[in-house]
Formats: sequence, structure tokens, C-alpha cells
Amino acid sequence: MSELRKDPVTGRWVIISTERRKRPTDFHLEPVQIAPDPSCPFCEGHESMTPTELLAIRRDGSKPNTPGWDLRVVPNQFPVLRVEGTLDRQGEGLFDKMNGIGAHEVIIESPRHLNMLADMSDEAIERVLWAARERMQDLRQDRRFRYIIVFKNHGSAAGSSLDHSHSQLIALPIVPREVHDEVEGAKAHFDAKERCVFCDILRQETRDGQRLIAENGDIVAIAPYAPRFPFETWLLPRRHEAHFENAPRHEYASLARLMGDILRRINKTLGAPPYNLLIHTAPLGEPADEYFHWHVEIMPKLTKVAGFEWATGFYVNPTSPEEAAQVLRDARG
Amino acid sequence: MSELRKDPVTGRWVIISTERRKRPTDFHLEPVQIAPDPSCPFCEGHESMTPTELLAIRRDGSKPNTPGWDLRVVPNQFPVLRVEGTLDRQGEGLFDKMNGIGAHEVIIESPRHLNMLADMSDEAIERVLWAARERMQDLRQDRRFRYIIVFKNHGSAAGSSLDHSHSQLIALPIVPREVHDEVEGAKAHFDAKERCVFCDILRQETRDGQRLIAENGDIVAIAPYAPRFPFETWLLPRRHEAHFENAPRHEYASLARLMGDILRRINKTLGAPPYNLLIHTAPLGEPADEYFHWHVEIMPKLTKVAGFEWATGFYVNPTSPEEAAQVLRDARG
Repeated sequence: MSELRKDPVTGRWVIISTERRKRPTDFHLEPVQIAPDPSCPFCEGHESMTPTELLAIRRDGSKPNTPGWDLRVVPNQFPVLRVEGTLDRQGEGLFDKMNGIGAHEVIIESPRHLNMLADMSDEAIERVLWAARERMQDLRQDRRFRYIIVFKNHGSAAGSSLDHSHSQLIALPIVPREVHDEVEGAKAHFDAKERCVFCDILRQETRDGQRLIAENGDIVAIAPYAPRFPFETWLLPRRHEAHFENAPRHEYASLARLMGDILRRINKTLGAPPYNLLIHTAPLGEPADEYFHWHVEIMPKLTKVAGFEWATGFYVNPTSPEEAAQVLRDARG
Repeated sequence: MSELRKDPVTGRWVIISTERRKRPTDFHLEPVQIAPDPSCPFCEGHESMTPTELLAIRRDGSKPNTPGWDLRVVPNQFPVLRVEGTLDRQGEGLFDKMNGIGAHEVIIESPRHLNMLADMSDEAIERVLWAARERMQDLRQDRRFRYIIVFKNHGSAAGSSLDHSHSQLIALPIVPREVHDEVEGAKAHFDAKERCVFCDILRQETRDGQRLIAENGDIVAIAPYAPRFPFETWLLPRRHEAHFENAPRHEYASLARLMGDILRRINKTLGAPPYNLLIHTAPLGEPADEYFHWHVEIMPKLTKVAGFEWATGFYVNPTSPEEAAQVLRDARG
């Protein structure tokens, strides 16, 4: 029989459907493939095709905006928000608006067009995490910003419009609603129990083991109890910390190792599916230190999400997290 | 410059992006087409291929589960929840679950395979709304249920797995989170102002006219102020009423007329896109009568929603509602 399960942070209920049960081989997917593109703006040698770089990790002391880099961060050429200007809040009768102030940056994860994150070295993945940290540390100085989102869309079905491996960073003058709900849920748990809900989850999942996928000294990978999507995976640091950008260096190294490992297990068992990857960190300028706990969420895109699911918040998941965890646990590279 | 806008009910902020501005012809879509299917379980003459019907509107006094019908409601063959059993709530350490009790029904909107809702007569569309009302009136007697969702996925990109025109109804023992947030937002507005927020929206939009698409004596169609999706359209009754299933008969007739009109305008201007349609009604057993206001939301699926959008609640919409409203206003059939 199907089960209704409640996410202990957000309070969101999901249905784990047994009638529509799906094992890894039941998903009919096209593996993500990278098409060669001689005019790709993210390739080494094409530096002039992007806006001026904000950050680069260079092998050889080469000059900015020239070849010789391992990773670059540049402003998005078609930003959803612009960094210039003063934040201007206005009413319009019943309605509220503000001008589109923010930052929208691209982390180009490799100089090579055909490199996918899952196949990169641990060091290369760590560079991506470190670049995100550096940009977050810089952008949080800007008091107009309330939240910084870092995310990766892999494959066009996951929303990516350029094949060359990249992540995006958006700094916002507001806290997005899903983040707000997650933070409020964590706060309510803390108010009731004086414990971090994510620390509680870590304790229960590492002891129980059913939904544990893999772990190392700093980071634990689990299938969450009430996942919206098949094979949804969370990576959490064992040590409590609200802000991703405040983690010590060795945690990025540990996260990079486990993240590469998990992405390769997903590729191996699910046939290189499209996915979204998100860093969940605490809002800026809110006293979330005690009750929020940064983490990474990976969501393989295996099913078509019907519009009604995101409009109602009512998700049907055909693969239980216990089954997903077992499949990924057994998939050691 | 882009604009950040706040939905006055849920408090959700969206970005109306001018950098990525899209006009109707900028969306590259395949029109939804219906493929013939000799083994379609929803076709007239194939009544034995579905579970026993719960409701039928018959032309000729024919017997249940035989040909001669204009509309049938049947249990879903692969339900996400089952109606049999007692609701059993359990804890699992930190976590909460309950067994999958609920109802999952299908409204077969026409006996003919190639009929699409947009092309049906006003009377046929009214039958669909009336059938939803009848099933809601029946299911709300069951005290285990807290919410009834009625929705339509049109086209496989919108999540539909069968071409034959149909809607679905799911009765749930919980209130889904997005519904909860909408109801709570409406309640907060009522608590502050002692007015329904949807009545306030109707007043402002009919007076202002910028986002007004079409109207008749009972129903108003608008582009909402902070839409998540291009050409998102809301249909609201002028008369305040929390529960869809409590509307007077003439409002279903008026809604059917305007809904068919809007769907045809969408088909004409956007090239018969996939879409989702949802009835938003008040939860059961909650005193929402004063502050909630039922309505219908239509969301053409024109853009790929990146996973991060539903995971963060941060939506970027490349078409302003003023532009969408103007296009649909000018598209009179």
C-alpha cells in the first residue's frame, strides 16, 4: 500500500506510491550527451565571448580573460537580475514590487567542452565548491542581498541551455519562498526542542542505516525520508554550520569526494540522467546559526513533473527512499 | 529592467525578466496532437476496460458501464491512493507517516477519442465542471478527507499519459503545502483587513484593466500580477464563495463559456500548447468560508521549468502579465 510521508523540515507531505512502483530500469531516459560546439563561449580560448571574469583559478599565472585557467566565474550574459542600481520598493495598489537588483554569475567548471562534473577529479570538483564559497563570501558584503542560490542544471531536460559544464549563482534581495519555509521549519523544530532538525536527521539516519547511501569523515549522503523525486539525495556535513560559505576547507574536499562518488553511482545505475544540484545555505542577515544546517540536494530528473505537482505541492514518488538508497549503496564504483 | 513582484496571496516573489523577454512567437513548441489508439480504455464501447463507473451522464437512459454516455467518472486504474481502509498515523523516530488512504478518480470528458476540451461545446465543458462538483459533494461526506484536488494535464509535456481528454480528482487526508500556504495567506489578509484578498484582486483588476483578459456576468479571467509562468491565467467568480462545489449552477455555465473561450485564445496565439488546469477550492473542515475564494488556474507549459525553480520557489518568467493579457485580450476567436 502507498504511504504518505511528511518531511520533518518543511512539513511537506509526499506519496510514496507502490502501485506505480519504479525500479531503476523502469525509467526510460535518454542519457545526457554533450554535443561539440565550436562557438561555445565557455571553452578555453573563447574568453572574449563572455563578460569580464570575476574570478579564475589559473594554472600558470596567466593574465585575466586569457587561456590558462582551470575554472572561471563570469557574470551571466543574459542575467535575470542586474547588480547596478539602488533597490527601490514600490506598491501598486494591492500589489508589491521592486526593481530587479541582484547578481547572476556563471561558474565555468572546466576549460574543456566535453568534461562532465561527474567525471572530473576530486580536486576539480573541490575547485567548483571553493569558487562558490569565494563568490558567496564576496557577495554577502553587499547589504542589498538577502539570499544567494547556487545551483547546477545538468542536461537540457533539467533546464540547461549550454552543454559546457557550469553552475550558476544568483544573489537575491529577497528570500525565496521554499527557502523561507525550510528555514522556518528548522526554526520551529529548534524552538520546540532546542536541537537542529538536520542534526537530528543525521543521528537517526546514520544509526538506522536504511536510507544511508555513503559517508566519509565529514559528509553523509542519504536518501531523505520524504523525497519528492526518485533517487533524490542529500549530502550533509556532520558538523553543524548554517552557512555553506563558512565551512572549513577540509569539508569542501570531503564534499567534493562524496559528491563525485554519488554522481558516478547515479550515472552507473540510472544511465547518466539529467539532474539538478542545489546548495541549501542560510539566508543572510538572519540569526539562523543555531537552527539551520547547510546541505546539498541532488535531484535526478527521471520523471516528468506534472504542473499540478509544483502548483499544489503534492508530489507522487514511485520509488521509496529505502529502495533508492539500497540501489545507490550497492553501486560502488 | 527586470522586476521582482510579490503574489498578494502566497507572498511568493517572481522575477519578470525583460532581458529574457519572450513574445508568443518566441516559444518553440510542438502543438499537442492526439494519436489514434484502438485500445484506448476511455473510448465509448471500451467501458469494460475501466473500473466500474462512479458517475455517468447518459444521453439515452442506457445502462451503467455500456455505451450511450457523454461523460463518465471512474476510479483510476493505477491509483496513487486507495479508498479502502482506516487512516493510520504513525511515527518513525523523528518522522511521521500515514497509510495511503484517499480517492483517485478520472473524469472522462468525452466518448470520442479525438475531442479536445478546448474544442468541445460550452455544454460539454459545463458537464465536466458539474461532474467535478458532484464527485466533490460525494467525497466530502467522507470525514477522512481534508482536501480534494481537481486537475487536468493536457499533452504529455504537461504530464498526461493518456491522450483521450480527461481530468483527475484526488481526495487527500492532508492539505497539500501549496494549498495550505495559499489558504494561510488569504487568512492573514482577512485578519488584517476583514476583506477577502481575491475580492480585492478582482476589484483592482477589473477597474485597472491592464491584466484583464475577458469577463462575463459571473466570471472574470485575468493574468495574475506575479505569475510564475508565461500566459498563466486565473478565472475567478465575481461572487465570493470559498468552495467550488458550492457554486450555483449558472456559475458553472458561465465558467464553462469563459474557460472554453480562454483555451481557444491560448491555442490560437500559442499554437495549441500543453497546459495544466487546476481548480483551487477551500480545504474541508476548516472555517475558510470568509477568507478563501475558489478559482481556476490555467498554466500553458511553454518553458522548461528547471528543477531549481520548484526546489527554491524562485521563478523567472520571461513574459509580463500585462503583455500576456494584451495578447489574449486581442485574440478574440
